[in-house]
Amino acid sequence: MTSRTRPVRRARELSGAVTLSHGSGGKATHALVETVFLEAFHNPALAALNDGAVLKVAGKDLAFTTDSFVVSPIFFPGGCLGDLAVNGTVNDLAACGAQPLALSAGFVIEEGFPLTELARVVQAMASAARYVGVSVVTGDTKVVEHGKGDGCYVNTSGIGLVDRRATGLSAAAACPGDQDIVSGYIGDHGTAVLLARGELGISAEIASDTAPLNGLVAALLDCVGPKVHALRDATRGGVATVLNEVALASGAAVVLAEDALPVRSEVFGVCEMLGIDPLYVACEGRMVAVVDGDCTDDALRVMRAHPMGRNSAVIGEVRREPVGLVLENTGFGGSRVVDMLVGDPLPRIC
Amino acid sequence: MTSRTRPVRRARELSGAVTLSHGSGGKATHALVETVFLEAFHNPALAALNDGAVLKVAGKDLAFTTDSFVVSPIFFPGGCLGDLAVNGTVNDLAACGAQPLALSAGFVIEEGFPLTELARVVQAMASAARYVGVSVVTGDTKVVEHGKGDGCYVNTSGIGLVDRRATGLSAAAACPGDQDIVSGYIGDHGTAVLLARGELGISAEIASDTAPLNGLVAALLDCVGPKVHALRDATRGGVATVLNEVALASGAAVVLAEDALPVRSEVFGVCEMLGIDPLYVACEGRMVAVVDGDCTDDALRVMRAHPMGRNSAVIGEVRREPVGLVLENTGFGGSRVVDMLVGDPLPRIC
Repeated sequence: MTSRTRPVRRARELSGAVTLSHGSGGKATHALVETVFLEAFHNPALAALNDGAVLKVAGKDLAFTTDSFVVSPIFFPGGCLGDLAVNGTVNDLAACGAQPLALSAGFVIEEGFPLTELARVVQAMASAARYVGVSVVTGDTKVVEHGKGDGCYVNTSGIGLVDRRATGLSAAAACPGDQDIVSGYIGDHGTAVLLARGELGISAEIASDTAPLNGLVAALLDCVGPKVHALRDATRGGVATVLNEVALASGAAVVLAEDALPVRSEVFGVCEMLGIDPLYVACEGRMVAVVDGDCTDDALRVMRAHPMGRNSAVIGEVRREPVGLVLENTGFGGSRVVDMLVGDPLPRIC
Repeated sequence: MTSRTRPVRRARELSGAVTLSHGSGGKATHALVETVFLEAFHNPALAALNDGAVLKVAGKDLAFTTDSFVVSPIFFPGGCLGDLAVNGTVNDLAACGAQPLALSAGFVIEEGFPLTELARVVQAMASAARYVGVSVVTGDTKVVEHGKGDGCYVNTSGIGLVDRRATGLSAAAACPGDQDIVSGYIGDHGTAVLLARGELGISAEIASDTAPLNGLVAALLDCVGPKVHALRDATRGGVATVLNEVALASGAAVVLAEDALPVRSEVFGVCEMLGIDPLYVACEGRMVAVVDGDCTDDALRVMRAHPMGRNSAVIGEVRREPVGLVLENTGFGGSRVVDMLVGDPLPRIC
């Protein structure tokens, strides 16, 4: 079995144009990051490709992360651009094992965007930040001409202090025998946003799962400490893509049990109608935790006891082989390779 | 003489839509920040309205700042979106008296943007970061449909350690007797970008002044230490707007000498043709330093000795009255009030 690590492509070989797939979080995004960004910016913090960078500052481990939010529509069942932008960055910090210290907010607003809608977005950000106990301490506002944006885009960056029990967290730290736990139902966010566009003529009672996961991560670390090996919030590209990142970084395999995946029946129904696999649909309030097999029961118990993890479930395990692959054992006794997301069936989900 | 501090407007009084003026960095931006952002996010770090927030982390002063860059065109004489995005955030940190520790990069790319142009932008970012000695440690890429962006927008956020001699830096710390020094010719960047649009049928040899100012600030602090009272990089809204921010925050007056303003003849000529005052035109590599009057000569000498400050000049002084105003003594012996930028004659300059 050979490793799937690809030779680094060179920027000078580039041709063509950016497509929506490059923003999917899946294969095309990874190729773009490798080809354009890693080569130019090469440094160990970025090359680790975790959800944020961890830097030593005054003897402490400081996590630093950034995310731009271009979700369409801006308002959807269960949330809006504003809380999504706060929770998304809080969750990237949480995936580094960090509690948030401060957030920034950078707005790119399209000329003509109603001030009342801007105020709603900002109020949602403020409210989400208050819930987490973090402040938006610095910001920036740019306005672009009508037709050069889409209402409002928001970038949030965040800094946080890494829990001392989480300093070894990394997708590369997953090892055979570890168990994969997801903190709740998958695919709610992506499905809710898709339906909110109103283009499909499907209606279903599905709300986004946008939520902050820093409290859940703190509870998990309190319980099992450094036996948490890797954390990833399953946003763009869904659970399938983050587990592929774990498999690639660790050089191990991830084997999922189809029957164990927590999917709401409404989400399953919509995905089936559209021919989309819920494993690839973005969540915005779900963490995938890769924990030492010895402490699976404790980890699951503490996650289920937390309000943000009530429907946590063990969905698979890490094995030695096949190196770098994610497999799913299906309900029919078969097995299939679960690749990273290819293309982008659901653009602008976050 | 009454203070010009305005009563805080309430978000619920909002009506209408966002206009290009809201992104100018001038009066409309300030009103939007007051009305929408400060009320929702209220916290002391944000309310200080400095170029970045300063937080205590592990006993150190950490500066944190964010800026989105939507410049049009993306490539212009003297630079491009990429170096602008790095230098802009480095300069916001420098204006806090901080040396950069790390940068983030968030890309919002329009579908169809050529990959070779993206690579040029990224290479320019990497090159600018190398010059400063800072790394881009974390990033994010989103793609929006054709017609929902304009090629590429970049957000850079940054963290930095505040020099221990700069912990009192604040626009509010300016006091009567201080002198205002600008680190070079004003208005080059805005004029260069405007001409690069090719819509005016004017050609002139003007290049952007985009440059990192952290080295210049370090040299200034080495020389005069805490006698530097305030630093502001004169970007959107130009020197006039940042000096108004100083006057408003300090409750003092700033009095400029028209004859002392360093303006290249080419920039002066273009501005005169267009009826724009160079005092309002964005610079991207110019710092305004407000220093104790006792050390003006030393400060000017060390700034002129630095490659980024060769054309530094004393342009005015801080006086007790008229409270909160900026005045300019004209070459003809008269005096006029220099208000904050109103409207936006040069949108999307950064």
